[in-house]
Amino acid sequence: MDFELPPRAKELRDRVEAFFNAEILPRHREWHAHVMRREPVPFMAELRRKARAAGLWNLALPDLAASEPGTRCSNLEFAPLAEIMGRLPWGSEPFNCHAPDVPNMVLLQNVCTPEQKQRWLVPLLEGTARSAFAMTEPAVASSDATNIATRIERRGTRYVVNGRKWYITGAAHPECKFLIVLGRQEADGARTRQHSMVVVPMDAPGVQLVRPLRFIGWEDHVAPVGELALTEVEVPLENIIGREGDGFSASQTRLGPARIHHCMRLIGAAEVVMSLMHVRATERRTFGRTVIEYDSVQQAIASSRVEIEQARLLVLRAAWAIDRAGFRGGWRDLSLAKIAVPATVQRIADRALQIFGAMGGSDDTPIHHALAYARLMRIGDGPDEVHMRQIFRTEAAPGWSIAESPYICGLGN
Amino acid sequence: MDFELPPRAKELRDRVEAFFNAEILPRHREWHAHVMRREPVPFMAELRRKARAAGLWNLALPDLAASEPGTRCSNLEFAPLAEIMGRLPWGSEPFNCHAPDVPNMVLLQNVCTPEQKQRWLVPLLEGTARSAFAMTEPAVASSDATNIATRIERRGTRYVVNGRKWYITGAAHPECKFLIVLGRQEADGARTRQHSMVVVPMDAPGVQLVRPLRFIGWEDHVAPVGELALTEVEVPLENIIGREGDGFSASQTRLGPARIHHCMRLIGAAEVVMSLMHVRATERRTFGRTVIEYDSVQQAIASSRVEIEQARLLVLRAAWAIDRAGFRGGWRDLSLAKIAVPATVQRIADRALQIFGAMGGSDDTPIHHALAYARLMRIGDGPDEVHMRQIFRTEAAPGWSIAESPYICGLGN
Amino acid sequence: MDFELPPRAKELRDRVEAFFNAEILPRHREWHAHVMRREPVPFMAELRRKARAAGLWNLALPDLAASEPGTRCSNLEFAPLAEIMGRLPWGSEPFNCHAPDVPNMVLLQNVCTPEQKQRWLVPLLEGTARSAFAMTEPAVASSDATNIATRIERRGTRYVVNGRKWYITGAAHPECKFLIVLGRQEADGARTRQHSMVVVPMDAPGVQLVRPLRFIGWEDHVAPVGELALTEVEVPLENIIGREGDGFSASQTRLGPARIHHCMRLIGAAEVVMSLMHVRATERRTFGRTVIEYDSVQQAIASSRVEIEQARLLVLRAAWAIDRAGFRGGWRDLSLAKIAVPATVQRIADRALQIFGAMGGSDDTPIHHALAYARLMRIGDGPDEVHMRQIFRTEAAPGWSIAESPYICGLGN
Amino acid sequence: MDFELPPRAKELRDRVEAFFNAEILPRHREWHAHVMRREPVPFMAELRRKARAAGLWNLALPDLAASEPGTRCSNLEFAPLAEIMGRLPWGSEPFNCHAPDVPNMVLLQNVCTPEQKQRWLVPLLEGTARSAFAMTEPAVASSDATNIATRIERRGTRYVVNGRKWYITGAAHPECKFLIVLGRQEADGARTRQHSMVVVPMDAPGVQLVRPLRFIGWEDHVAPVGELALTEVEVPLENIIGREGDGFSASQTRLGPARIHHCMRLIGAAEVVMSLMHVRATERRTFGRTVIEYDSVQQAIASSRVEIEQARLLVLRAAWAIDRAGFRGGWRDLSLAKIAVPATVQRIADRALQIFGAMGGSDDTPIHHALAYARLMRIGDGPDEVHMRQIFRTEAAPGWSIAESPYICGLGN
Repeated sequence: MDFELPPRAKELRDRVEAFFNAEILPRHREWHAHVMRREPVPFMAELRRKARAAGLWNLALPDLAASEPGTRCSNLEFAPLAEIMGRLPWGSEPFNCHAPDVPNMVLLQNVCTPEQKQRWLVPLLEGTARSAFAMTEPAVASSDATNIATRIERRGTRYVVNGRKWYITGAAHPECKFLIVLGRQEADGARTRQHSMVVVPMDAPGVQLVRPLRFIGWEDHVAPVGELALTEVEVPLENIIGREGDGFSASQTRLGPARIHHCMRLIGAAEVVMSLMHVRATERRTFGRTVIEYDSVQQAIASSRVEIEQARLLVLRAAWAIDRAGFRGGWRDLSLAKIAVPATVQRIADRALQIFGAMGGSDDTPIHHALAYARLMRIGDGPDEVHMRQIFRTEAAPGWSIAESPYICGLGN
Repeated sequence: MDFELPPRAKELRDRVEAFFNAEILPRHREWHAHVMRREPVPFMAELRRKARAAGLWNLALPDLAASEPGTRCSNLEFAPLAEIMGRLPWGSEPFNCHAPDVPNMVLLQNVCTPEQKQRWLVPLLEGTARSAFAMTEPAVASSDATNIATRIERRGTRYVVNGRKWYITGAAHPECKFLIVLGRQEADGARTRQHSMVVVPMDAPGVQLVRPLRFIGWEDHVAPVGELALTEVEVPLENIIGREGDGFSASQTRLGPARIHHCMRLIGAAEVVMSLMHVRATERRTFGRTVIEYDSVQQAIASSRVEIEQARLLVLRAAWAIDRAGFRGGWRDLSLAKIAVPATVQRIADRALQIFGAMGGSDDTPIHHALAYARLMRIGDGPDEVHMRQIFRTEAAPGWSIAESPYICGLGN
Repeated sequence: MDFELPPRAKELRDRVEAFFNAEILPRHREWHAHVMRREPVPFMAELRRKARAAGLWNLALPDLAASEPGTRCSNLEFAPLAEIMGRLPWGSEPFNCHAPDVPNMVLLQNVCTPEQKQRWLVPLLEGTARSAFAMTEPAVASSDATNIATRIERRGTRYVVNGRKWYITGAAHPECKFLIVLGRQEADGARTRQHSMVVVPMDAPGVQLVRPLRFIGWEDHVAPVGELALTEVEVPLENIIGREGDGFSASQTRLGPARIHHCMRLIGAAEVVMSLMHVRATERRTFGRTVIEYDSVQQAIASSRVEIEQARLLVLRAAWAIDRAGFRGGWRDLSLAKIAVPATVQRIADRALQIFGAMGGSDDTPIHHALAYARLMRIGDGPDEVHMRQIFRTEAAPGWSIAESPYICGLGN
Repeated sequence: MDFELPPRAKELRDRVEAFFNAEILPRHREWHAHVMRREPVPFMAELRRKARAAGLWNLALPDLAASEPGTRCSNLEFAPLAEIMGRLPWGSEPFNCHAPDVPNMVLLQNVCTPEQKQRWLVPLLEGTARSAFAMTEPAVASSDATNIATRIERRGTRYVVNGRKWYITGAAHPECKFLIVLGRQEADGARTRQHSMVVVPMDAPGVQLVRPLRFIGWEDHVAPVGELALTEVEVPLENIIGREGDGFSASQTRLGPARIHHCMRLIGAAEVVMSLMHVRATERRTFGRTVIEYDSVQQAIASSRVEIEQARLLVLRAAWAIDRAGFRGGWRDLSLAKIAVPATVQRIADRALQIFGAMGGSDDTPIHHALAYARLMRIGDGPDEVHMRQIFRTEAAPGWSIAESPYICGLGN
């Protein structure tokens, strides 16, 4: 047992930290000004080139092939990098490590034919295209993914897609080139065998971006969220990803990376919030005392520290477990982190908001972002309730009854 | 002791309920569509005329003079009306019962000369003008109002105002006609005797609306919030409200009405959220069960009910206490409500969000509004910490020491 | 609506307060010394005589007949009295207002024949006997009372009772004269029609007090809790209380009074805990400050105040509702209080414990009592979960679907 | 970074687990029956011999010398062992790994001369004597140890001790041979330089065991807690432990081991509580469902799992950090664990209690023990507040002001 990062992880962390501090953080105000005016961010392309040139590209893909561009990292090596990137809403983008493109890349790595990879995966790896994964629907509880109702029908040489999708992250990005659509193909058979996935180009006839969406007022400027109407959308048969009927289970393979990366980033967002509340409390006075002198404020900070440290350890252990046993073997550790981290960050952001006063809720601070991101992640990629249900099921019964339990005394005496 | 509303309150409640259901709620989608497009709401003027014609105007002013337009209600009578109005973010506006105009009217009633009333109060009572109260500043912790630093200097026949204000509710409304500015006039003397209030017309030279503001992503469409720069703004001496040096204490007189009305409205907002989560849970299925069948969901609803009922009782008792003893006599009951209600509504909105899934965080539901409104009220009009500090101070010591306490046994045996 | 106690309630409250301060509280240390040594309390009989002579006897029985000894109070009048009595674990006993005898008296008032009343009720009213209600069983989840499995069989002129009961309050009192046993008589038919109640004298052959019980270490010295074995216990047919098969529903009639009285007393216990933590914090210093100067301590006290006030209002409203509509009409208000009060008092006691340090957990302070009493009441007389289930069921659906809800916008655009 | 136990830790864990399951757990009911009757536990001596013979003795002492009896373990190796031992209140005693003797041994190892070790340490290592550390006092807030007021005066060849101590763990054990008394020797100088420690034999004239103590009703049967009066107690000068004036800082050296061992054991106690609530919920039915089918119960279990895993990771990291950097270097990690673990276990025990019903609060289950142990540890060995204060102080300020923070946008526009 060893709680120290391995040397390569430290070395990468130092390089990402240096790049973040030199190239990204100093441009945050500029970035913010652009996105608040809904303008494209003019320096982003150049920044991404710089990161790639520095060998800090596609760091979130443990199965990156030698032929694919980027630096392969294990989950454990990526964890501290993602945490640094998570300090800003857009901190992952320069490194091509942002959602939902990374989970989509993992999915495409897993299920695509070489031809499909060339067509759909390579542009993502190169950073020349954006993508979205179209699963969630307004009409059903998507937390139970077997509820997904969008129809995918095979008609001759085409699949025809009809349905409504929403909260599709990245779909409202102007450079989003394609959707991976999860839909129901068969109404019969096992609930987990009825779904398929097809790639739908954004410019296919019948694809309509109904509107952009936000979540408790927060807009994702890196991968803008959209509502989509899919009406008689036709794609060729070669656009199926994986096999017919495999869609539900195959789609799960992108959820693991999505979940753990979100958890990693959220820790970084929480650390920034911690720093900010610390400084804020140091700068303000009320009723004759600096705010930081109030022990309730000190306890808010200390409690947040206790909670962050616990949450981070869960994330690191999940990363370690996944590196050893894959997402299939490490899913329980990951679910534990997925339950703990967003709730923790939500609490911390809420405390920071109170210490800040109104400014904490303004667009000027990243607190709203941390709060909304954390809150969303208690719902997205499996809501708390679903993960708790899974964790509950892993609890082993001890093999005795209460009456026979060696821990119970006094009964029947 | 009697927990039933008095007959007049019931009768008014029924009339407001009927008006709300017939005239306001059916137009909510239309209202929403307009404000999301940042358009004026075309039917508002007509709706306000209708409400006034129905005798449902200026219901929030217990000291309304016979000569002033509207229906005088006690605080207790107004409570159930405000709760109905609070069901929608704009539910108070048709009745001219919205913040910040109502607290400003109360302030003007209290401290103005007849000439000032004619000029500033009457247009508010008639609903022909909007106003804002400019207190909070970005550079200081305004939760301790003696920190307010905007300068008001007397130069000859003019007051000259310089400072920065933000989170000024209503200041960004296009029809906002004037600000009541709280500023520091004297740097010497008791901290509570240094401030004065002057009325500043929005079109006075030197008044600049720097930008609109939102709070955790929520925009107030009834009284849009703004940041203001006041640079060498000159107003005549007659624009002082109350006496020089009285600004701090006089400004407190508007806080009582502001606080209790917010609490009343928040209860109404929470009730809507409750209804929505109930319906949502009834309509959705996961893992073979309707969501409402999960007892954790039932407990979320039941806990919310317990908490709403408690919160409402505190609000009603505060209203009753204020009717009997004024805001000075009833402030403790009001502080108890002010601490309890926003925190309660925040919790309920958060539960609803989880039951809803992503839709709960969208602009389509009023949950974001309830959450942001509640969260803001844990900061605005005195943050939780200040009210708790006050409540703590009212706790009487019992007059014995631990060693002598009749409740303590065993010591010294 | 009126939040002031009626004159008679105030007058009674003043008299009970005076009696408590003059006669009860000064003897608490003596009482404590006796019960810690498991001795009878020598002054109790005299104290009860005094209270009765002062007209402060049987105050908890709103349906007290003119011919029955004591002072009839409504539930609302009794609330402030019970709160005073609740300041000490034994504060109700001098007034003959203690559980479980009072709920048993209510039950006997409701279902007994005149002969039965003479035999079982009168000694309780006179204070010459003690009783216990034997419902809870170790082998089943008694929170669902239809699970009760103790057998009551009619054999000729006798009922024969066999079963095991535990957590039977008062059964371990040396003066407990009889049990009211709830048992299953019929295995068929509706689950709520299978139970009957019989009176079983404690000295009947086959009644065995297996052992005394405590709850998280707390012993009830007023009505000591016991485990009972009932083996072939025979009682004459005349010992049935109410009709055969009515036992389940009739037993509910004692639960209403039990619940509301516990809630009233818990408020009093919490007030004592509040006073104690206030004094303790005033007397101690750490790290150069008096503990009360830490704002986290002030917030603990203020939060407790907010919560007590809310809880008390729920209790008072429930009392008022029951006075108007009976327990059947007021049960919902009562359930709300029953959910809120014990959880509130548990939290307050826990805060006090932390402020006290180890002394707070010792037998010297009443904090352990408040904590254990509150904790027990989250389980006893219907656990939180059962009351929440009931409250949930009273929530009315609003009559629209999400798609049609006037509060929902944006869908289908 | 590696989350797997090292091989030796696993091997020791398996041996302790086997011994626990074969020799300890099967005797728990017997142990319980004896201690409830306040009898000595007849099999304990034999069990301790067996454990020692099995090489499972003094496992909690990382600095155990080769000449001292027992098996030296690092903190990390001991963690899983202590967790197993913590499953029962007396699980550490057979291995001579119980408090307060272990922390006292560490203290004596650190500060004693060879002669003192022979006299005081060896009997503890051999398990032939018990000891107690007498610090806490009823009259002062001992959470700030500089408050300690017991007087230690040098008079000629003797130290004379006068004072009152309480909550002295182990002092009420019949075999307790000596106290290590922390007292004030000098009233002048730095607050942390005024205290000294002397060893006081329990049979010294003037040592009086005033009474045994319990904490929220829980008695420590392994190291019974006592209140002590020390009146003109004389000991020779050689009984000083460490140097005069060093008492405060030297006493801290026993706190580190005390804290981390308590945290380790609490995790084990929580695991037992988890198993019990799982089984209980599986065995009971209410309202037509097995209790375990209620998703609120499943969530109680899953949340407990999330919290235990987080808490255990903090404990393991603290053990690892202490192994690398000593208690001085690892104190921050230890404080984090000390804050998190007891609060976590308290919550879990409280949930279990609710699922159990009344039985959960009885003496029959270990829930009361877990609850009381956890609750006590939020006060003992440094209350939560003190540890939070320390953790707060380790938070580094980021070096920018809010106005200059690169994370803050929008200001000054």
